[in-house]
Amino acid sequence: MDEQLEFLREIDKLKNVIRKTPLIDNYRKENSAEHSWHLAMYALILSDSSDQEIDINRVIRMLLIHDIVEIDAGDHPIHESTENENQEALEIEAANRIFGILPDSQGGDLIKLWREFEEGVSNDAAFAKSLDRMQPLIHNIETDGGTWAEANVTESQVNDRYGPTISSGSTGLWGKAKVMVKNHFA
Amino acid sequence: MDEQLEFLREIDKLKNVIRKTPLIDNYRKENSAEHSWHLAMYALILSDSSDQEIDINRVIRMLLIHDIVEIDAGDHPIHESTENENQEALEIEAANRIFGILPDSQGGDLIKLWREFEEGVSNDAAFAKSLDRMQPLIHNIETDGGTWAEANVTESQVNDRYGPTISSGSTGLWGKAKVMVKNHFA
Ligand SMILES: [Ca+2]
Repeated sequence: MDEQLEFLREIDKLKNVIRKTPLIDNYRKENSAEHSWHLAMYALILSDSSDQEIDINRVIRMLLIHDIVEIDAGDHPIHESTENENQEALEIEAANRIFGILPDSQGGDLIKLWREFEEGVSNDAAFAKSLDRMQPLIHNIETDGGTWAEANVTESQVNDRYGPTISSGSTGLWGKAKVMVKNHFA
Repeated sequence: MDEQLEFLREIDKLKNVIRKTPLIDNYRKENSAEHSWHLAMYALILSDSSDQEIDINRVIRMLLIHDIVEIDAGDHPIHESTENENQEALEIEAANRIFGILPDSQGGDLIKLWREFEEGVSNDAAFAKSLDRMQPLIHNIETDGGTWAEANVTESQVNDRYGPTISSGSTGLWGKAKVMVKNHFA
């Protein structure tokens, strides 16, 4: 139990990883811990919107842990112009260090779950990724453009960067999102 | 889906409900959204520590939603000297308003789950409540006393206010906590 409590102390640091996305009230930027809570709630509420059959409890777990590597590797939003080639290596190192605090089999299971999310191939991962893309879209729209306005992103760029990921988990969600985006840029 | 998305926008406000508990780095107070994420992680990691048989997926859901009523009713820490008699009524009203944004059956299920947590009687609720009491204890100890120092709380008061709730879900966790508390006040 000592290792488990040490892990739970360590991940408190995710509350200080600041994302680019604003809160809906536009008062401050979101941190990755509260973002992870919000996404787990997205999964719980929108589970019926997945196109494929999913195990919603696995999706919730995936979303709870999906950003923990950011404690070491930072948050890298999709509109960043410079790609860090080492980002993947950094994140794997982070996963090994942080989940490695846990007892071996528990830590190993969470590393596997995180890699499944990153790969985005399984039904559960595809739906988790579609929610992870949907939530900032809503926040950007609610804050008069949010990170899109900051980065001068156009409607077609939004459709290109959000559409494939959202629709690969839920065509219903992307149907809603596409209309919101259209109205936003109109 | 519109009602569900409206609910997910509404609960963004939980990120602005500030608790008394400090983050472990003592840089700022915790908000109730990131706290809910942290507790869901406590459940995921510590599920084997429950004394009773539990459905860990229900415990995680319970903890994800347990503080949402605070959007309307505020956070009420256990060391507050004044008890608000209307607090329970306020929270029920809050649950009805906020979960009421959802489609009827989905909202009704979450209100029931929240009431089960509040009652703290079922195995799942007892374990959820023990984690909700354990986490701030750890944060107080990691920050040289945190809210205990602010309120001049003694060792025996800590044992009285944390012990029954933590041990009713997990005697193992309380065993660990009791030693931490003893060392803290030594
Ligand atoms: Ca991220």
